[in-house]
Amino acid sequence: MDPKHGYLTHLECADCATAYDATVEQHRCTCGGILLARYDLAAVAAAVTPALLAARPWSAGLWRYAELLPMADPADRVTLGEGATPLLPLPWLGAELGLDVWLKDEGLNPTGTFKARGAAVGVARARLLGAGTLALPTAGNAGAAWAAYGARAGVPVVVAMPRDAPPLTQHEVRLYGARLHLVDGLISDAGAWVAEGVQREGWYDASTFKEPYRLEGKKTLGLEIAEQLGWTAPDWILYPTGGGVGLVGLWKAFNELRALGWLAPDRPLPRLVAVQAAGCAPVVRGWEAGATATEFWQGAATVAAGLRVPGPLAGGLMLRILRETGGTALAVDDPTLRRALGELARHGLWLCPEGAALLPALRRLRASGRLAAGARVVLLNTGAGLVYPEVEPLA
Amino acid sequence: MDPKHGYLTHLECADCATAYDATVEQHRCTCGGILLARYDLAAVAAAVTPALLAARPWSAGLWRYAELLPMADPADRVTLGEGATPLLPLPWLGAELGLDVWLKDEGLNPTGTFKARGAAVGVARARLLGAGTLALPTAGNAGAAWAAYGARAGVPVVVAMPRDAPPLTQHEVRLYGARLHLVDGLISDAGAWVAEGVQREGWYDASTFKEPYRLEGKKTLGLEIAEQLGWTAPDWILYPTGGGVGLVGLWKAFNELRALGWLAPDRPLPRLVAVQAAGCAPVVRGWEAGATATEFWQGAATVAAGLRVPGPLAGGLMLRILRETGGTALAVDDPTLRRALGELARHGLWLCPEGAALLPALRRLRASGRLAAGARVVLLNTGAGLVYPEVEPLA
Repeated sequence: MDPKHGYLTHLECADCATAYDATVEQHRCTCGGILLARYDLAAVAAAVTPALLAARPWSAGLWRYAELLPMADPADRVTLGEGATPLLPLPWLGAELGLDVWLKDEGLNPTGTFKARGAAVGVARARLLGAGTLALPTAGNAGAAWAAYGARAGVPVVVAMPRDAPPLTQHEVRLYGARLHLVDGLISDAGAWVAEGVQREGWYDASTFKEPYRLEGKKTLGLEIAEQLGWTAPDWILYPTGGGVGLVGLWKAFNELRALGWLAPDRPLPRLVAVQAAGCAPVVRGWEAGATATEFWQGAATVAAGLRVPGPLAGGLMLRILRETGGTALAVDDPTLRRALGELARHGLWLCPEGAALLPALRRLRASGRLAAGARVVLLNTGAGLVYPEVEPLA
Repeated sequence: MDPKHGYLTHLECADCATAYDATVEQHRCTCGGILLARYDLAAVAAAVTPALLAARPWSAGLWRYAELLPMADPADRVTLGEGATPLLPLPWLGAELGLDVWLKDEGLNPTGTFKARGAAVGVARARLLGAGTLALPTAGNAGAAWAAYGARAGVPVVVAMPRDAPPLTQHEVRLYGARLHLVDGLISDAGAWVAEGVQREGWYDASTFKEPYRLEGKKTLGLEIAEQLGWTAPDWILYPTGGGVGLVGLWKAFNELRALGWLAPDRPLPRLVAVQAAGCAPVVRGWEAGATATEFWQGAATVAAGLRVPGPLAGGLMLRILRETGGTALAVDDPTLRRALGELARHGLWLCPEGAALLPALRRLRASGRLAAGARVVLLNTGAGLVYPEVEPLA
């Protein structure tokens, strides 16, 4: 184990498998592919077991999985208490559909969304590699999270977002002391502005999938779900898909757990389902067309701000993951999603609109016969309703 | 251990020590005093140890402390994933003041505040005792929490709050399907309306300290802090004080832990500090006057909605606890509190205004010489800034 980088050995392109040195700043493969952090999993398996993990204090949150994260020294961590979120059984929904259903509630994170996981590890790793100013475009939530973790770490952050991104998130970015740049357009336009600053100012490009470590933080979602289910995989995980870091993270987590021998070997990986908004569904369109890449979605519009990602960089990788795991993709329109928001709240769960979309998606999958009776299903709610007070439920 | 009520033996009046049957609905002592839940602590100590506790899954949140909670059957629990919140070291503040400072961040709870703890146990216990409709007045946050937990438990909830309580909280109460009643006045006026309904409609009175179990949920705050500090007590805990359930809960927790023999016996209980808003400071006024009861605060006004409690029922008990633990009470004005809100955010911590008041309070205590160098201090942040987006920080 390296005293600085832990069990991390190198970075590997998800497309062409080219290896990169992980001890210096890296962003993407020369082929344009996404870089995945690779670990010495044999050494990890020799160093830690589920039983040892179980004895670690809960208070460490996602850092309990230290050996599967890209740093060794606890002093290099940046934490606001992210991770260790609940997996809530939903017996009312299970009874309705003849399934075992859980909600992984990521609203109980710093800044109210699962973006905290990616920001914690991403900011920590950028600081460790000596990055100066971190810059990223965002549809909303990631900006608040990176601004908060940058402030906690003492690293300056620049956030670009659409002028019509949730006003609360804009407020948060300013509050945390980050520089906020608003663009007339979508996250893709904000991305272009960041790319320019990266060139001109030498900012560290912290855009989705343009640095390899946000994914490592998000990956802990899968590690936690497996641990919470007694080191088994659920049959299905439904994931509200914008940029897709969580989807790729879940896939990476379950693959690493299988390689470690921590999962029952006779069970398949969970089938992953990409749920999108009907007003911005490039992954669903690509899936239905049997394509290997997604096409830019024109005129993206949905109240679920986190799903308004018209051209996700990981589009092709996501389609591959859906195929590989035997999953699927489907879209939910805004009125349906807003009705689900109200229905879930009447069961005590005020989810973000992205998370609310999973309820009608699950019902449709069950009605179509894709999900067998008794299947074990996890709905991944990416944030708290509190983050989107302006999205009104429909009756 | 009783299969229904666990190690709970009876209820005891905090003022006159009269005992009450805990197996039926109880509210207050005939003398007007607050009822405290009492346990067979010798049997608890024989049944569980800190080492056994450490092996329990983190995912159970505050229910990890099952033997110190008033129910035995996990099926009787009501949970949205409350508790198990982080205790964040604040090295920048510790360095400034020559102290060891931690922030217990209760914003990472369902509904974004520590009220979730009280509501989880309070609602669960009310349901177990066969309560019908639960009713409570609130300055804001407790209403959202009880509405959410009532919805989760399938128990109807009526919430009364000042018309000028935070709009977001009003929205939440409606969203969760509870009945919302707005009064032109303060929490005390809302309380009068609830009391009438309790008489007329037979509602279960879930008002602060008018049922004994909300306190049991809040008590887990102290249990967690002790566990997170390796089963030691901090020297000081600063607590933003409205109704005072958390303050009484901390005191009760540390007393129970000492009785269990889980704390180092040679250390005193933590000194508890009640921090209030200058615009509503009945506990501070009572403390400074050396009184044994608080007087109703006329014209209560502060941006920290949770501190706008002009006549806390536990006023006398709080003053006794401050004396007993060698603590103190002090008030912070709104501009100072709002400046602290901004300063904390620039360190990555967007607290609720109540929590932000603790920063200037700590500085004043340190400057006054009350806190010795090297003291171990916990600041108890009661909720997330997200819950109060309308409170602007001052530069």
